[in-house]
Amino acid sequence: MLSIPMHQEPNPTAILLLSCRDRRGLVSRISHFIYERGGNIIDLDEHVDAGEGMFFIRVSWSTDRLTIPVSALEDAFRPLGTEFEASWNIRFTGRPTRFAIFVSRYDHCLQELLWRYSMGEFSAEIPLVISNHPDLEPLAAHYGIPFHQFRVTADTRADVEAEQQALLDANDIDAIVLARYMQVLSPSFARRWHGRAINIHHSFLPAFVGGNPYRQAYERGVKIIGATCHYVTEELDQGPIIEQDIMRVTHRDTLQGLIRRGRDLERMVLARAVRLHAEHRILLNGRKTIVFD
Amino acid sequence: MLSIPMHQEPNPTAILLLSCRDRRGLVSRISHFIYERGGNIIDLDEHVDAGEGMFFIRVSWSTDRLTIPVSALEDAFRPLGTEFEASWNIRFTGRPTRFAIFVSRYDHCLQELLWRYSMGEFSAEIPLVISNHPDLEPLAAHYGIPFHQFRVTADTRADVEAEQQALLDANDIDAIVLARYMQVLSPSFARRWHGRAINIHHSFLPAFVGGNPYRQAYERGVKIIGATCHYVTEELDQGPIIEQDIMRVTHRDTLQGLIRRGRDLERMVLARAVRLHAEHRILLNGRKTIVFD
Amino acid sequence: MLSIPMHQEPNPTAILLLSCRDRRGLVSRISHFIYERGGNIIDLDEHVDAGEGMFFIRVSWSTDRLTIPVSALEDAFRPLGTEFEASWNIRFTGRPTRFAIFVSRYDHCLQELLWRYSMGEFSAEIPLVISNHPDLEPLAAHYGIPFHQFRVTADTRADVEAEQQALLDANDIDAIVLARYMQVLSPSFARRWHGRAINIHHSFLPAFVGGNPYRQAYERGVKIIGATCHYVTEELDQGPIIEQDIMRVTHRDTLQGLIRRGRDLERMVLARAVRLHAEHRILLNGRKTIVFD
Amino acid sequence: MLSIPMHQEPNPTAILLLSCRDRRGLVSRISHFIYERGGNIIDLDEHVDAGEGMFFIRVSWSTDRLTIPVSALEDAFRPLGTEFEASWNIRFTGRPTRFAIFVSRYDHCLQELLWRYSMGEFSAEIPLVISNHPDLEPLAAHYGIPFHQFRVTADTRADVEAEQQALLDANDIDAIVLARYMQVLSPSFARRWHGRAINIHHSFLPAFVGGNPYRQAYERGVKIIGATCHYVTEELDQGPIIEQDIMRVTHRDTLQGLIRRGRDLERMVLARAVRLHAEHRILLNGRKTIVFD
Repeated sequence: MLSIPMHQEPNPTAILLLSCRDRRGLVSRISHFIYERGGNIIDLDEHVDAGEGMFFIRVSWSTDRLTIPVSALEDAFRPLGTEFEASWNIRFTGRPTRFAIFVSRYDHCLQELLWRYSMGEFSAEIPLVISNHPDLEPLAAHYGIPFHQFRVTADTRADVEAEQQALLDANDIDAIVLARYMQVLSPSFARRWHGRAINIHHSFLPAFVGGNPYRQAYERGVKIIGATCHYVTEELDQGPIIEQDIMRVTHRDTLQGLIRRGRDLERMVLARAVRLHAEHRILLNGRKTIVFD
Repeated sequence: MLSIPMHQEPNPTAILLLSCRDRRGLVSRISHFIYERGGNIIDLDEHVDAGEGMFFIRVSWSTDRLTIPVSALEDAFRPLGTEFEASWNIRFTGRPTRFAIFVSRYDHCLQELLWRYSMGEFSAEIPLVISNHPDLEPLAAHYGIPFHQFRVTADTRADVEAEQQALLDANDIDAIVLARYMQVLSPSFARRWHGRAINIHHSFLPAFVGGNPYRQAYERGVKIIGATCHYVTEELDQGPIIEQDIMRVTHRDTLQGLIRRGRDLERMVLARAVRLHAEHRILLNGRKTIVFD
Repeated sequence: MLSIPMHQEPNPTAILLLSCRDRRGLVSRISHFIYERGGNIIDLDEHVDAGEGMFFIRVSWSTDRLTIPVSALEDAFRPLGTEFEASWNIRFTGRPTRFAIFVSRYDHCLQELLWRYSMGEFSAEIPLVISNHPDLEPLAAHYGIPFHQFRVTADTRADVEAEQQALLDANDIDAIVLARYMQVLSPSFARRWHGRAINIHHSFLPAFVGGNPYRQAYERGVKIIGATCHYVTEELDQGPIIEQDIMRVTHRDTLQGLIRRGRDLERMVLARAVRLHAEHRILLNGRKTIVFD
Repeated sequence: MLSIPMHQEPNPTAILLLSCRDRRGLVSRISHFIYERGGNIIDLDEHVDAGEGMFFIRVSWSTDRLTIPVSALEDAFRPLGTEFEASWNIRFTGRPTRFAIFVSRYDHCLQELLWRYSMGEFSAEIPLVISNHPDLEPLAAHYGIPFHQFRVTADTRADVEAEQQALLDANDIDAIVLARYMQVLSPSFARRWHGRAINIHHSFLPAFVGGNPYRQAYERGVKIIGATCHYVTEELDQGPIIEQDIMRVTHRDTLQGLIRRGRDLERMVLARAVRLHAEHRILLNGRKTIVFD
């Protein structure tokens, strides 16, 4: 069993994610809010979707010379947020994002995530792994992560999801990662975790939606395969895309070869998406994402 | 007007493309055929599709010390081809592939092809450009290529295709290239040019079939866009894929930006496909291609 | 001869590029400067090099409701720039960057730049092409660009550069592009155009500095070749890198093949760098660049 | 401890790797040799280096209907190999390549190799891990691989290498993998393992030879970083390149970020090179490689 690095910071970095209708002075007002409270902006990225008339910003600042307590920042910002009719939140690097990972029997994505976690690559905590199969228990154990198995059938899905939700609540989970989890979430569960449930689909979406995407790719004779990370929505494989990547294939690649090679894509793309979410770099824009990387 | 390099070779390279059911001894028999007639193999690439039980080969050899006339090679090989129940042909580098390019109003693909042609990059001749619009006539003229305009409407398509076919026949055309040609070929025309009509589609097929693929990609919020070259078949955008490529995009790319950036993909992918076809590197395997690159 | 689109805007976008030592409140002060004069920020990108303690920003804003004349913006900003001890300037989209392109005999980079220019891809004007050979005069003429030939020898370089400088001054040139220009600039000429002279080197710098990089790459047996755009400095191939790209090669690629395939890299990388410079997206950070793309 | 799949095949695939001076009839003679002994060619790839006048071939064939014992193939082929004055050998899939992995303290490459090994991705056996540090013993133990630690100092290197060689001999090792092994092999050791010792260098060679390549890359301000796998030779980082790959970086990437991101490159490139070597897909051509992938 490995020990995982803990994150504790006396003066964390604050990160604001905000979206609202575009208007004059947003950057000025927000950056002035930070400045007049003694914050020093480390990173600011903004985007205006001119077609939709929407404004998106991610700004992070150091709190070591802040003139108000860190714990008072949210209340202090609320009037601005209300004025802008914004969707917003403030997070701190001292409070890592807590992920639960859902798996079935394939180990490559879990292996990748836990190895990176053990390296301290993510600003994250992973207090538990949930599975509908027992196979990956030893892998979770190797990294010292509690493993919870739930048998799922069509009849029991609602009950199981309720139990899972209780477990997620008890562990104060911020986001869930479906790391080749071979179960479809119920619409209500998907809605509850809207924008906080990350799935990896083993194709270049929107090509090859649904089952057996490698077989579909093989039979179509594509010259490039892909993998796609997206937020889960009620509609299968239709959620906002976070990250994609591809690799070239040829007529020499068998179906088994595509599956083997595709594993590398899946785990790399998933790891990038988890890092982006953990670092609060993603904003939703309808069925799209804004990724401030 | 530029002058285009001519291809004339006293001792051309011969290229055999062959596919048949797999059986023992195919490589041995074929390479022995070449060896015993004094040919020296320059390049040999073969592939067995174990699932389909099919064998594919491309082999090229020098003819400078051939013990039979180059013109007698096809007849000499015929008994082997018949014995193998193969689909096959033999081409020579001294006889460049003759392409007709079909265009509408977008110039980027035509520009790319003609510039490469003028550089001698293709083992090809381009005796004519066909268009349903007059816009690109000056570009063709700059490279000294005859330009033929045909007005096409739903009513006249059959007649126009007949005229075009006559023109293609008169010019001894081997293959046609649809370089952002904004007309759908009729089923009978598509069948006639089966495996010899190359289209560029401005998406990563099979994603975004049909019209406005950049708009579809923009609205879906993909993180990667693509372009696909395929042989034309009766079914729109469903033909065997020759080549694909992609580029990363972000939320910063507008629809206009995707269109602008995608042009680079389209022309590069099309140019590669045209070169592959010109060099006789592509074999059909049902709705897939074998590309010996 | 083609006609090139002209850029005229009544209410241009203003673009500030600024770098200075990092300090609290820079974003706030700068965005407030814009806000209080009625500007609406379209795009803001900033970067802090924590190791060097340096701050870099690019911010663009619309001027259609500006409360001061556009022409007064620079004077209005000067006090802030002075206070921050910053290196800065403000440009406007209504005043395109004026490039002179230097070429020798290879046409691929010039072809690419002029074609994109004719498509309106660059916020740029290209009033002249300068060459030490006559070969590319017809290409410049096709796009209607004046072409100036200068014979250069070791003895005459100083005189020629003086003449060229006079020509550049007369044409109000902002930046020069060495599009496979086979002459080394003199140190004094390089200094004069510091940060404004873009060169394309046909290797993945810092690998294969100097002459014949494709031959060097071929002989080393690399599996990937590259191209690099950088600002020219007195030291050959050592200037700040703007953009790089690569392509995979194999043992099948001959030296001639590398040269042919590498052309595609060179022109794409150069075109991207020219666009970045034209859109004022590049800041110098010592011997590195900050590219706000 | 995981159990690793064993490779046992009654009718293995035979693989010939051969290089010699080019001459007429090589493919015909070799494929006929296979045919007349009842072999069926599965895959044949050949290359002629016209500049060097050299011929390279990899051919694999099924042995299930062979008319001679598999064990007699080498003796049967010897006359041909002698006649061609070739460098050649024949391997069988039933006898996996046996690798020893050398590591120091970084775990990412070892983790990647052992995980793939446990998945059965390599046609390989890994009977031991050798290290000059104790850190990675638990990782090797997790996969059930014996771990041998050797303390190395400048004074003891010769003795340690002798001990290591004895251990490699005792384990019948075919090839060694330096998976971020922070020791330079002695010239005599490097010579002994010529063409059989694979190293991963964390740069895009030949850029950034030697120590701290990420620091060198960071300070040079490159826009792309790379990793390179090569065979070890006496001259540091100068051996024949097997495989390379790259990733884009920006001014936002800190040195620590390059190191973190580069780990992904290193392990992917190393894994590909190990697979290529295990599958007998690499031939040496002087200081280059021929990779039949």
